[in-house]
Amino acid sequence: MSVSTVSAAPAAAASAPRVSAADGPSGCAPLPVLGRDVTVPLVTGGEVTYAALDYAASAPALQRVWDDVAAYAPYYGSVHRGAGYLSQLSTELFENARRTVAEFLDCRAGDQVVFTRSTTDSLNLLAAALPDDCQVFVFESEHHAALLPWRGARVTFLDAPDSPERAVRALEHALAARDPHGPALLCVTGASNVTGELWPVRELAAAAHAHGARIVLDAAQLAPHHAVSLRGLDVDWVAFSGHKLYAPFGAGVLAGRADWLREAEPYLAGGGASRKVTRREDGGVEVEWHDSAARHEAGSPNVIGAYAIASACKALGEAGFGALAAREERLVRTVRNGLADVPEVRFLSLFGDDAPRVGVLSFVVDGWNSSHFAAALSAEYGIGVRDGLFCAHPLLRALLGGDPQDQGECGAPEAAPGGTSLNAIRVSFGAGTPDEHVERFVRAVRELVRGGARWSYRTVDGRCVPDTSA
Amino acid sequence: MSVSTVSAAPAAAASAPRVSAADGPSGCAPLPVLGRDVTVPLVTGGEVTYAALDYAASAPALQRVWDDVAAYAPYYGSVHRGAGYLSQLSTELFENARRTVAEFLDCRAGDQVVFTRSTTDSLNLLAAALPDDCQVFVFESEHHAALLPWRGARVTFLDAPDSPERAVRALEHALAARDPHGPALLCVTGASNVTGELWPVRELAAAAHAHGARIVLDAAQLAPHHAVSLRGLDVDWVAFSGHKLYAPFGAGVLAGRADWLREAEPYLAGGGASRKVTRREDGGVEVEWHDSAARHEAGSPNVIGAYAIASACKALGEAGFGALAAREERLVRTVRNGLADVPEVRFLSLFGDDAPRVGVLSFVVDGWNSSHFAAALSAEYGIGVRDGLFCAHPLLRALLGGDPQDQGECGAPEAAPGGTSLNAIRVSFGAGTPDEHVERFVRAVRELVRGGARWSYRTVDGRCVPDTSA
Repeated sequence: MSVSTVSAAPAAAASAPRVSAADGPSGCAPLPVLGRDVTVPLVTGGEVTYAALDYAASAPALQRVWDDVAAYAPYYGSVHRGAGYLSQLSTELFENARRTVAEFLDCRAGDQVVFTRSTTDSLNLLAAALPDDCQVFVFESEHHAALLPWRGARVTFLDAPDSPERAVRALEHALAARDPHGPALLCVTGASNVTGELWPVRELAAAAHAHGARIVLDAAQLAPHHAVSLRGLDVDWVAFSGHKLYAPFGAGVLAGRADWLREAEPYLAGGGASRKVTRREDGGVEVEWHDSAARHEAGSPNVIGAYAIASACKALGEAGFGALAAREERLVRTVRNGLADVPEVRFLSLFGDDAPRVGVLSFVVDGWNSSHFAAALSAEYGIGVRDGLFCAHPLLRALLGGDPQDQGECGAPEAAPGGTSLNAIRVSFGAGTPDEHVERFVRAVRELVRGGARWSYRTVDGRCVPDTSA
Repeated sequence: MSVSTVSAAPAAAASAPRVSAADGPSGCAPLPVLGRDVTVPLVTGGEVTYAALDYAASAPALQRVWDDVAAYAPYYGSVHRGAGYLSQLSTELFENARRTVAEFLDCRAGDQVVFTRSTTDSLNLLAAALPDDCQVFVFESEHHAALLPWRGARVTFLDAPDSPERAVRALEHALAARDPHGPALLCVTGASNVTGELWPVRELAAAAHAHGARIVLDAAQLAPHHAVSLRGLDVDWVAFSGHKLYAPFGAGVLAGRADWLREAEPYLAGGGASRKVTRREDGGVEVEWHDSAARHEAGSPNVIGAYAIASACKALGEAGFGALAAREERLVRTVRNGLADVPEVRFLSLFGDDAPRVGVLSFVVDGWNSSHFAAALSAEYGIGVRDGLFCAHPLLRALLGGDPQDQGECGAPEAAPGGTSLNAIRVSFGAGTPDEHVERFVRAVRELVRGGARWSYRTVDGRCVPDTSA
């Protein structure tokens, strides 16, 4: 396998699909996903069913989501002011998707559901809607999407805490020290995209509110794994992405309190957000903007993206998060127990190895550069994980020490002065993951650590790939 | 038909599809689209193949685009730092889509192709990337997406011109009068979303450049109908949307000069746009941003949306815009000639009735409120057009006079004091439109004007719908 050969796969797939839904080892996944029977070639010969273990970056589409999108696609039409049958159908479908998401998130009366393009977009939208003089509080351990959007605001970065209790105390301390006048916002993840650890959202919300601050929950990693209730958690806003929720069609969500959103300048200026536009006598233009979610949704909505998210919300709701989470905890234990006697593998955590987490684990392997290890998992076992710093550089620095690097050379293993890997490997899974993928991952890690890679690798364009020139 | 009954259609479609690709009157459309054989019920009884004539809002997906997306979907994977086979495949697919779009637009060396969510998003991105003190020039006749994003800049709104030559002269006049120091930008459409008329883009580009200004082309309505060459037109940027280019998967494009984009703050702050993030000694964070298109694409890219656009670019390129445009001109003549002896139908134009245009025509019907007329076209003929002001309020005011209204009451026809309709009807078509749809439209307009609607209509939630309570 090399980067240059994989480009032929889609054409090959179209002409002679290797995908068949009838068989394959997906029986034990709670929710079937697309690609569950895709096979990939191994550099060592033969083919194997692809093990997608990078759900924390992007999950495969649920089969149900795909089926719903495929059933709708011939009925796709222009929304809102289209007078035709399919336009009315599509408009209704789009607005129903909004209601489905509101139910999925257990929204309060008056909350708005804005369709965005992603969690990143949702948080940038909220950042653009902050009242003047808003103070923002954010832990350094956040994903960059939660860490960086607050441009123009006074931002207090809190050090990565070593326990949920310390997180709450650090927030309380910072809020107590803040200028008590004016609005404030905490942005916090529900589950770390690096360690998978659950954050004490309800407690942080209570602390924020006690100090007159609001809270937005980055649920990108939480929503695919646990029920998220705005009402129950008492958070002011929730953001999540379709592509991590088994609905990778370019849409995301920001849901929550309407007041700041309604008072803010529209996120995008254009049609759909504008109710009335007139020339002024001085030659300028006067705009009346909508007050509803449409205010921040200028441009033709991504109807398919929103419908796909709604479909995923329904499928997850019907499967039940209790059962999904319990199964995922079992898979986490499979990983942890299966590697407990491999001391070279060191998992990363803020809150301790046994802290509750979703199906996301990051680790380093002594003696290996993480990029090299991840490349071997792919090329020799057909397992797709992620290596690097996971768009959470300050957290990785806190966890790894040294000067972590997003890209790693392969060949000779590299290490920071302290002997710690310069970057990490992340394995993540969810409702579409069969047990076999996780079991294969455990076996592969053990074999690689004990026996080394069977192939040689080289660095191409900053990535570690099998050396097929030999 | 009523709004409440259409919601059942997708479920019905899934269980007992009315869609079949084998037959139907689509033979004469150059490019097959999804939904070409969808039938809809008529309020007067029976069913008819749906005539989607609202392409200017959103075009149906090309069958080819759908097939490509469907073939790829099982191979979807996390892009960029994913180490797995499908991640590498998806990354390559995404970056190949960027190259395909660059070829489609005949980009120059060094131009960037940024994937956005829509034309609106693309123009808001460019607006956010303007250098300080940039002066913006825009005709009042633009779509709100081109008219409104330039917040924070000094904007000169130019009156709607009555000929292409006057457009160029008006721009030259305005540019000559501007503060000659500092950057300037003209934003102009390639084809009006209301009248379909072609704008003199090359001449406007020459005038802009002669005065030291730059130009961004809003090609939302042009790109689906004509070849767009950045190099040939000598425009600095082009923006367009996937959903008008037969690829409705939530993605759009901004392509053109890299310098302003590279120097600007990232459009969205988050992962993907950030190369390195570190804590500063003062507790803040220091960010190195990417210089490439990724700078403005924070968050997980919409791979399927970008791939769909690339697929459409290829399909349109292979069909050939010469043939597509010639056929569309014939369909425009079918409409114009077919209604030439119906004086109640008055087409809207800035440049004169015979000015070159894409397959987009707007009109009013004497004695009819446009919403009422559009509702009758849908309910009695299965034709989907659009009524309202088309997100171009100042233009509609210039064309209609009075105080145009985006929504119209039905029942008694309404008219502004001068006898002109308060809003308009737009019919639009493209490469997926069979002749029969346009012929049916002509026949329907003639019958409605001559014989009136056969059903009664009422206003529900500001929309005109058939009264099914009778």
